[in-house]
Amino acid sequence: MEKGYVHVYTGNGKGKTTAALGLSVRAVCAGKKVFFGQFIKGMEYSELKCIEFINNLEIEQFGRRCFIYEKPSEEDIDAARNGLERMKDILKSGEYDVVVLDELNIALYFKLFTIEEAVEAIKGRAYNVEAVITGRYAHKEIIDIADLVTEMKEIKHYYNNGIEARKGIEF
Amino acid sequence: MEKGYVHVYTGNGKGKTTAALGLSVRAVCAGKKVFFGQFIKGMEYSELKCIEFINNLEIEQFGRRCFIYEKPSEEDIDAARNGLERMKDILKSGEYDVVVLDELNIALYFKLFTIEEAVEAIKGRAYNVEAVITGRYAHKEIIDIADLVTEMKEIKHYYNNGIEARKGIEF
Repeated sequence: MEKGYVHVYTGNGKGKTTAALGLSVRAVCAGKKVFFGQFIKGMEYSELKCIEFINNLEIEQFGRRCFIYEKPSEEDIDAARNGLERMKDILKSGEYDVVVLDELNIALYFKLFTIEEAVEAIKGRAYNVEAVITGRYAHKEIIDIADLVTEMKEIKHYYNNGIEARKGIEF
Repeated sequence: MEKGYVHVYTGNGKGKTTAALGLSVRAVCAGKKVFFGQFIKGMEYSELKCIEFINNLEIEQFGRRCFIYEKPSEEDIDAARNGLERMKDILKSGEYDVVVLDELNIALYFKLFTIEEAVEAIKGRAYNVEAVITGRYAHKEIIDIADLVTEMKEIKHYYNNGIEARKGIEF
């Protein structure tokens, strides 16, 4: 059985969740099984529809909405904590070859759970599991336990020119 | 009809083609039509299998193999030049909402065609077309005409620890 590694996609540029989604699809194409868990997010993303036609890809959301411009509520915290428990089990089970923890970094940034709890979940994964972590502001300890880290750096962004997020491109 | 913009995913880190693939899948989920053209590449990538179960996504390769460690042959150049002609038509037709020019930057870096030819193709796209360009070493003029640029920066890579590219993860 091949060892699975830890990827981190962080930084302020576009492409983090998108790269995790691309990696998931590539893995499925190669016959692997993928679990894609999303912290924070509870919105209607186009990619949620993927599961209708992509076998061996499961997506689950552990967020209620996007609160990132305000203080998280008790319910936001509960949703994230329950999500981490769920991810811990999924990572440990070895049932999925690739496990995505989308926006884990943001959940940590907002202290919805502790860095120790997150590291324990990732380190407790089954031998074969490739773990993929996304979100800006990656914690130093997340970088430390990662085998691959890419910083997605914003060089130019059309948001700065007043272009809003568009369905099918950003969500 | 909504205007389509130009994205560039460049830099030395993992996640460029992967982000373009993720964006393509998201777009398809939102009912858009995607053409994914790959310069340089002519290898068996897992993602080529996507088209078997993802409707409205077409993938075409304009490379023969991966020559990036040696000098391109006449045939490599011909393949890339024919690819650019094909992409020019596809971009102009407006038939696809999202058009990916995977590794265009590398094709330019190896001077398989000129920057003027590439810029002409991109600028000649139909109004609605979102163009997505990937590859390290993005040319300054490509950055200039782009609306969104993300640099995927390698912070840590397992290749440096002797781990080789794996099916379903890298290809």
